[in-house]
Amino acid sequence: MVHSLKGACVFGQSGGPTAVINASAYGVIKRALEIPEITHVYGAEYGIKGVLNDRLFDVSKEDPDELKFLLNTPSSVFGSCRYKLAKPEEDDTDFKRILEVFKKHDIRYFFYNGGNDSMDTCNKIGRYLDSVGYECRVIGIPKTIDNDLMLTDHCPGYASSAKYIATSCAEMRKDTAVYDVGTITVVEIMGRHTGWLTAASALARLCGAGPDLIYLPEITFDMDDFLAKVKDIYEKKGNVFIAVSEGIRYADGKFVSEATTSATDGFGHAQLGGLAVILADYIKKYTGAKVRGIEFSLLQRCAAHSASKVDIDEAYKAGVAAIDGAVAGQTRKMVAFKRKDVDGKYNMEVEYVPLDQVANLEKCIPMEWIDESGCDVNDKFIQYALPLIQGGFDIPIENGLPRYANLKKIIAE
Amino acid sequence: MVHSLKGACVFGQSGGPTAVINASAYGVIKRALEIPEITHVYGAEYGIKGVLNDRLFDVSKEDPDELKFLLNTPSSVFGSCRYKLAKPEEDDTDFKRILEVFKKHDIRYFFYNGGNDSMDTCNKIGRYLDSVGYECRVIGIPKTIDNDLMLTDHCPGYASSAKYIATSCAEMRKDTAVYDVGTITVVEIMGRHTGWLTAASALARLCGAGPDLIYLPEITFDMDDFLAKVKDIYEKKGNVFIAVSEGIRYADGKFVSEATTSATDGFGHAQLGGLAVILADYIKKYTGAKVRGIEFSLLQRCAAHSASKVDIDEAYKAGVAAIDGAVAGQTRKMVAFKRKDVDGKYNMEVEYVPLDQVANLEKCIPMEWIDESGCDVNDKFIQYALPLIQGGFDIPIENGLPRYANLKKIIAE
Repeated sequence: MVHSLKGACVFGQSGGPTAVINASAYGVIKRALEIPEITHVYGAEYGIKGVLNDRLFDVSKEDPDELKFLLNTPSSVFGSCRYKLAKPEEDDTDFKRILEVFKKHDIRYFFYNGGNDSMDTCNKIGRYLDSVGYECRVIGIPKTIDNDLMLTDHCPGYASSAKYIATSCAEMRKDTAVYDVGTITVVEIMGRHTGWLTAASALARLCGAGPDLIYLPEITFDMDDFLAKVKDIYEKKGNVFIAVSEGIRYADGKFVSEATTSATDGFGHAQLGGLAVILADYIKKYTGAKVRGIEFSLLQRCAAHSASKVDIDEAYKAGVAAIDGAVAGQTRKMVAFKRKDVDGKYNMEVEYVPLDQVANLEKCIPMEWIDESGCDVNDKFIQYALPLIQGGFDIPIENGLPRYANLKKIIAE
Repeated sequence: MVHSLKGACVFGQSGGPTAVINASAYGVIKRALEIPEITHVYGAEYGIKGVLNDRLFDVSKEDPDELKFLLNTPSSVFGSCRYKLAKPEEDDTDFKRILEVFKKHDIRYFFYNGGNDSMDTCNKIGRYLDSVGYECRVIGIPKTIDNDLMLTDHCPGYASSAKYIATSCAEMRKDTAVYDVGTITVVEIMGRHTGWLTAASALARLCGAGPDLIYLPEITFDMDDFLAKVKDIYEKKGNVFIAVSEGIRYADGKFVSEATTSATDGFGHAQLGGLAVILADYIKKYTGAKVRGIEFSLLQRCAAHSASKVDIDEAYKAGVAAIDGAVAGQTRKMVAFKRKDVDGKYNMEVEYVPLDQVANLEKCIPMEWIDESGCDVNDKFIQYALPLIQGGFDIPIENGLPRYANLKKIIAE
């Protein structure tokens, strides 16, 4: 039987933002404010830095109606950081400070919302607090557009980026096909180590306008083969649309984006333009065609106006589950999603997995979901991703534009 | 009294696509199919090229329910072109061919949907047909995201791009402000000669997240002054967001994007990366800050998923008005919008303006709408643009993605 733990809770957002990280924040906040054992609910300014600096926002001071707009507010409302903690056994300075601040505010619940590195932070804090005998329940909440966290079917944030990528690829494919003059378009999509986001471009085919070729970091990139394939499609169809992950690498392990910046290959400008521009340049020289390189850049991770309803809902639920799990005695765990379809219909259940087994690992697309050609995904990926992007684009609107949460952000004494 | 003119009509789409050009197509098609005098309704494949090649789609063969999806389908459904006709008095080859095809199909109504160049095409065809005594009513339908057509309050297509730009700038501004580490973001927006699209970034402030600086082609660009302003804001706020038109020029008339590509200034790569990358590079060198250059590229003209409701509605009405005007006897006119607010509420009326007075001209942002600093717009612009972007983002959805029109496109005999 788990005993009841009374004290304050602190919630931090970490790493790159997503379209729905604030939906998880809303889940945490709303649920935490309802729990009698939780005496205070704090949001840390700039993630763990807010704890180190003792800059905690007292969210009970916020208007509950205003907080609700967090469901559709992009970016990380309390601020974020990319701050790597040392190993506590090597340097415990930060951990001592964290303990000091936790003691000051009687913090007994710590929730950290982020990706791989953030789960590592969360895990280290949990281990340290246990090692010094300070009772605090520590829960990680998954968040990453990259979708590369282990032990969870998918990560909140991914589906909204996938939906944005699918929608935008469909729109651009339509746009680039209007002239009877051939064009080749290369779209660069985020994902340094895994191809989940780039694979989502395949969903655009459901709009009748998807890419011809999809290049993922899971598959070794070969420039000659790439150029030959592009030229072949160009000669047959006159119009080629290519989705490519920023993380594609040559057989020697070098990123294509980096390898081509060496002064000797005549692409000395490459570090400026990004991979799409580099590949567009190669294609132009090889085919003589009109080629355009496009990078989604930040847009793919912040487009809350086109967020997936499923994603918003699940991100919110992950926040709620973090609170409920901690109150029920879970600690040093990450909230995870397990797919349990009911009567052939998509259904997701929450579970808690050990942070130890999540931190610093990366989940790639299974090889059996990748087409034999090596430059496409198959229906297994579509069946996986399609349920995640459901719903329309209706969001709270003011002045014809998205209505975001406008918080007071009052620092706790 | 205008006499009734019986015959077929042909409709062509020309120039770059917009998010709502197919809404005008739907207006034309739906209304034309209702008019007894109009015997056949044709869509020209690839604009005027479809007339020259006698490639006309018989739209009566389409499913009316499917046609309705054109209201939310981006790009130009019949295909487009950038084909410049000669002056008929200098070379009448194309005009003779057009006349031949018109006679073959008994075409007595010609509708052309496009921007400046397309209105020129439309005007020349109208003049030629009049000069040879072939009775045909010729009407231009405005379309351009650039919003630079004369004699109309605004152009269909502009509002949707403006809404996309405002929404995306707000989202990116939110995203780039999450860390306590300073960043500078430069967003490059379309508009080679006029700043209407770039000015729309100011609307993002209504979401609480707009740009700090806005650079328009209407104002001469000064690099030293620009860098000083950016640095000043960076030092004060730590975070700078800059919206810049692709068409900004130095005092000598040279585009900033071109001028910096000269080999002597060390930016020999510039033609690849675009203006945002060039400016980001200058800023990085000048401030030492983390700088990101982002280009909306095609996304700003094809994002039908975030199209303005007002824009869709007006684009449709412009198509209907083209038919009604022509049937009522108008010819060699362009459909135009006149703003006639009723009780302080936005209201738009359709009128018909002479193509002669529209073709090849460009409308800039009035100088009195630009802030004295030269790097912002004032409330006069906001009052102008805000009514145009109203409505939510709800569109027909299938599989969680936009549902586009899927036409059969059957070529007329």
